[in-house]
Amino acid sequence: MTTVDIHDIARSARTFDLGGFYVITPLKSQRQLVQRVVRHWVEGKGAGYNPDRKAALSLVKVEESMEGTVGDISKQWGREVKLVATGARFQREAIGYRQLKEVLSERSQPFLLFFGTGWGLTEEVIRNSDYILAPIEGSHYNHLSVRSAAAIILDRLLGRG
Amino acid sequence: MTTVDIHDIARSARTFDLGGFYVITPLKSQRQLVQRVVRHWVEGKGAGYNPDRKAALSLVKVEESMEGTVGDISKQWGREVKLVATGARFQREAIGYRQLKEVLSERSQPFLLFFGTGWGLTEEVIRNSDYILAPIEGSHYNHLSVRSAAAIILDRLLGRG
Repeated sequence: MTTVDIHDIARSARTFDLGGFYVITPLKSQRQLVQRVVRHWVEGKGAGYNPDRKAALSLVKVEESMEGTVGDISKQWGREVKLVATGARFQREAIGYRQLKEVLSERSQPFLLFFGTGWGLTEEVIRNSDYILAPIEGSHYNHLSVRSAAAIILDRLLGRG
Repeated sequence: MTTVDIHDIARSARTFDLGGFYVITPLKSQRQLVQRVVRHWVEGKGAGYNPDRKAALSLVKVEESMEGTVGDISKQWGREVKLVATGARFQREAIGYRQLKEVLSERSQPFLLFFGTGWGLTEEVIRNSDYILAPIEGSHYNHLSVRSAAAIILDRLLGRG
């Protein structure tokens, strides 16, 4: 997780009106880094300098684990959270974009979309997900940055394009 | 133009099978920076270390001006280049995504899509364009990074989602 990831994905999350953007990492130093970045733009000097960035970064929350994140969201909504794994490799039983868009539009439950950086999501996350989203099929090249992949996936699921 | 912009947009360009990704800047120091980055990944140490990145960055060309870029493309294709301006603000007579996707699918001419960083495209570029693409309409927030905007626009115009 880099600071560019945080800024870009927060800006995409705000564009498509998400309820939050959770950065999940077991590493304390990483969580502290993210919290520093967020504080700078939400409460610190950055907030006055760039209110648009404040609007985006105020969506960011930092969590240690997937369990903690799911607990936070289900408490907030008072409902069970549905988990959606994303990734560049095709998995058996993947759900397509139109199909998931329809499910989301019912707005009956909160959904948590997982994006992995570096080597992608762990097997555990994939196993525990309710849905596995189909990869973005471009040409035969499937090496988008996580920032670009998140932007495209949010647009396909929530955009009006 | 940052090195993250170069990497991300090159990876998106390769994903959607573009013919090239031109970085246009009148600043010599910026052109040299981009050329150094590209050389590292296409010919230098990066090429062996990460062939996927090489495949993306080999699409990058560096130009001093819009005129030089248009000239390079029309020479390569032997046809007139159609210019498409993009941006976050709505312009009169903007073309929609489905309509432009249809035009592109005819594949009768090369198209050059312009993305601006920082303060967006200049009035001159907008005036000289054949088409002005409608902005990405999410919620009322229109502050995507140029990397995310490029990814979404390429997906809408060329993706199979």
